[in-house]
Amino acid sequence: MTQQALLLVDHGSRRAEANENLLHAAEAVRECAPDLPVFAAHMELAEPTIAEAFAECAAAGAEEVIVFPWFLARGRHVREDIPRLCAEAAEAHGLRNLVAEPFGVHRLLAELALERAGLR
Amino acid sequence: MTQQALLLVDHGSRRAEANENLLHAAEAVRECAPDLPVFAAHMELAEPTIAEAFAECAAAGAEEVIVFPWFLARGRHVREDIPRLCAEAAEAHGLRNLVAEPFGVHRLLAELALERAGLR
Repeated sequence: MTQQALLLVDHGSRRAEANENLLHAAEAVRECAPDLPVFAAHMELAEPTIAEAFAECAAAGAEEVIVFPWFLARGRHVREDIPRLCAEAAEAHGLRNLVAEPFGVHRLLAELALERAGLR
Repeated sequence: MTQQALLLVDHGSRRAEANENLLHAAEAVRECAPDLPVFAAHMELAEPTIAEAFAECAAAGAEEVIVFPWFLARGRHVREDIPRLCAEAAEAHGLRNLVAEPFGVHRLLAELALERAGLR
């Protein structure tokens, strides 16, 4: 069976607090999927970079990296920059990679918006 | 009972497709809460503006507008710009307003990330 890893990629920021958000997100995903190796990377401005995270995935024995763009919408970063950086990093480590759709619009987001708004 | 409205506010973009995303999001929220008046506005770069949306809320009979920032994290726009624009607009229409926390990190986002990644 193919060894899969999930890599969450956000934009990256100069603010440590913004970057830490993705680490908390990765922790939340691990709680939902305890057997899945989950990694995190920033597209730019902060480490770990996408290249560094693919190296971690390879070192952990992954054969295929599923990249989830931690973005609400499918803008240029999600459509172009992240797939390009991931393809380069995957090739460097002989890994397969697949970039998933970002959050987009979904009933779960609608429910969370209502919860955050105190309306649920 | 206080008449509440929910106002979703995203960043706003010059790309029509990006702005339409918020309209789809508002539709998804309406499906989850059919009795709640749900409005949408863009912080900048596109209409309806926050000021225009508060005018719509007032015209619909709302007394209190709960603003949900359609953002993943609590950056400067969420902390400063959106509350300021909403406070100004609320005052202009004699409405109460409350700016909620953005999506942040939450189990529902973790579950959606796994679903988008094809791992659920």
